[in-house]
Amino acid sequence: MNVDQERLRADLETNGSFGAVSGVEGRGRTLFTGTESDRRAREYFVERLEATGLDVRVDRVGNIAGQWTPVGCDPATPPIAAGSHLDSVDTGGIFDGPLGVYGALEAVRSIRESDADVGRPLEVVCFTEEEGGRFGRGTLGSSVATGRCSPTDALELVDDDGISLADRLRDIGFAGEDTIDASGWDGWLELHIEQDTRLVEANATVGVVDSITGIANATVTIDGEANHAGSTAMRDRTDAFCAAAEFVLDLERVATEHARESGTTVGTAGELTVEPNARNIVPGEARLELDIRDVDHDRMNDVVSGCRSSLARLERERGVVTELDRYRDVPPTPLSPNCIAAVEMAAGDCDVSAIGLHSAAMHDTANVARVTDAGLLFAPSVGGVSHSPQEWTDWSDCATATHVLADVVRVLATS
Amino acid sequence: MNVDQERLRADLETNGSFGAVSGVEGRGRTLFTGTESDRRAREYFVERLEATGLDVRVDRVGNIAGQWTPVGCDPATPPIAAGSHLDSVDTGGIFDGPLGVYGALEAVRSIRESDADVGRPLEVVCFTEEEGGRFGRGTLGSSVATGRCSPTDALELVDDDGISLADRLRDIGFAGEDTIDASGWDGWLELHIEQDTRLVEANATVGVVDSITGIANATVTIDGEANHAGSTAMRDRTDAFCAAAEFVLDLERVATEHARESGTTVGTAGELTVEPNARNIVPGEARLELDIRDVDHDRMNDVVSGCRSSLARLERERGVVTELDRYRDVPPTPLSPNCIAAVEMAAGDCDVSAIGLHSAAMHDTANVARVTDAGLLFAPSVGGVSHSPQEWTDWSDCATATHVLADVVRVLATS
Repeated sequence: MNVDQERLRADLETNGSFGAVSGVEGRGRTLFTGTESDRRAREYFVERLEATGLDVRVDRVGNIAGQWTPVGCDPATPPIAAGSHLDSVDTGGIFDGPLGVYGALEAVRSIRESDADVGRPLEVVCFTEEEGGRFGRGTLGSSVATGRCSPTDALELVDDDGISLADRLRDIGFAGEDTIDASGWDGWLELHIEQDTRLVEANATVGVVDSITGIANATVTIDGEANHAGSTAMRDRTDAFCAAAEFVLDLERVATEHARESGTTVGTAGELTVEPNARNIVPGEARLELDIRDVDHDRMNDVVSGCRSSLARLERERGVVTELDRYRDVPPTPLSPNCIAAVEMAAGDCDVSAIGLHSAAMHDTANVARVTDAGLLFAPSVGGVSHSPQEWTDWSDCATATHVLADVVRVLATS
Repeated sequence: MNVDQERLRADLETNGSFGAVSGVEGRGRTLFTGTESDRRAREYFVERLEATGLDVRVDRVGNIAGQWTPVGCDPATPPIAAGSHLDSVDTGGIFDGPLGVYGALEAVRSIRESDADVGRPLEVVCFTEEEGGRFGRGTLGSSVATGRCSPTDALELVDDDGISLADRLRDIGFAGEDTIDASGWDGWLELHIEQDTRLVEANATVGVVDSITGIANATVTIDGEANHAGSTAMRDRTDAFCAAAEFVLDLERVATEHARESGTTVGTAGELTVEPNARNIVPGEARLELDIRDVDHDRMNDVVSGCRSSLARLERERGVVTELDRYRDVPPTPLSPNCIAAVEMAAGDCDVSAIGLHSAAMHDTANVARVTDAGLLFAPSVGGVSHSPQEWTDWSDCATATHVLADVVRVLATS
């Protein structure tokens, strides 16, 4: 099997030109679902699938699959699928998502061009709206393809302009009528950039992911008392922002203590709103959005408990009124031992240095793993940077990781 | 002299109807400079001045003065002026400002109706944009009337829509051509609500202000590193929001320690911006707007020094890069001993319980005190609330404080 680095690079660079952001350091890209850039990226992808001789299907939420059925193989045989997503965050990079989509296509191309004896169909897949950048719900396409979200619910989601996903997909000609059902796949593989520095630090080119982090999201509201910043004495204040400051430091401390033992716990308050947010008014309300992740659900619960204890203390000591609404709780996803073993073996066969690690970011694979055997491979991220124009993975590393992916797909499709 | 409580109340309630905010508890009012509500409030004020027989002038920045020259008095004699402002903060109350304007008018009315032998002209004054609600610069009108800001600079200020004060005033017909020069006044008095609870706690109806707080404003910028909230380990973060949290608690601690001795020190971070402010991204930048006040300039400097020490520590311990830009420094303003004595005596003559105190809020009087003898009286604020629809001062207290104001004006105009 011969993975063609230049062919892969050409696809990734062409794809990176759709929604390209100029005037930034690095290679920026903003690709939101249903935009003109999305239409062009999808049309190019379909063109590349068809140029490889794959049969293309588009489902109701715009997920795209291209299937290759080897000569002499029953097309009804459950296929091995591989892929990722093409959408990006606002001003993201060119690798997060596309590497897995075009890596899968390059893997299938290289398998077809080899004399490998493949006994199953192969599918190259692109899921819609993995980043949640326009409709606010991450891993949306794979949620539908795995039955976790109904197509109707997904299509009724609206963006900030009040336009539905259904309308946005119709606008760009990608509201399909086929069905893409991940539970019908014999196995699934996703290649993705690591978005961290563990591979680089270990001098490895492939990460074999053993589990995907769980995510708890919560909104914390802290009510104090807005008042004049001049005439309200320090001792008479119920400053919601000062209370929020103590809370954030408690969250940081609790997450850091757990991380010291686990190495995998993270807790972040990335979003904050202060009301009325005026220089000369003591803040009356603070709202924080929390993101707590770990590969162990009990530890996630421990961090949330730590947050609740902090808030209870702040109510006693500062007289604020608080609320913690844990509105999302995705438990961690252990990946298939089958796939893990196959990736490890392929890396060995290809003479590629690989290490085992967890994924601290959410991926479509977390959905797919609930309905079939699923594996996730990482390629190295320079500086661990992602969701940024500075996101980078060397072209040779892209090719090497794709080579391992191709080998796993071949082995799984043969066995 | 007979202050007419119902006449005063009618003026304040009518004025409170301009820009009235419905659907809030209490009596809300949003009156920004140059709006239709402002036009109506100003026209009503002019109408009331003229109905009292005063000669009305409007200067280039929309400051309004109504002058009464007693029979037999040389109109060129330096007058005694009294007043305040009619603009409000966003969703403020109906007393902050208007009590001083209509209290001054009621004082002049009651003096005219008495047989007092007044030897100087009296002026009732309304200053433009005291709150800085539309053009971002507080006590703007009095800054111009006292020569601290040129009319041209003031008129070139623009609001959030990019429209200048000059255009806004022209729109509502209050771009005047007269001059209002506070340095030509023999003395100045402002009646204002206390915005604190010291009068209520002391069971007093009038506060005799001995000094107006100084204000230091500063912008603090804390630069960390924005990164993925999932894949960035706790130990690898430079979280700008966590650093800002420590800073805010340091500011609170330093201000509280000083306040324990002085009773007058306050420090507030009322405004905060976090970038990129996304739930799943470790904050890369935090910007805070600080407001530090005291009646002692050295203590203000001590608090700012405490802020700088905190930032230096955070740079060492957290690796953030910080900046503190102290862009405004108004030193405290001691008020005229003459006026203080006159107010104390008037309160005694009127048999009104009065206490001495400082003003922790900025007032137009701080500007006027730099060019002539100036005094400031407080009326009690229920619950200390202000800048809110819940702001309240009992009508009888409004009348009692106005009575004292009238007596001081009479005495100063006679002497």
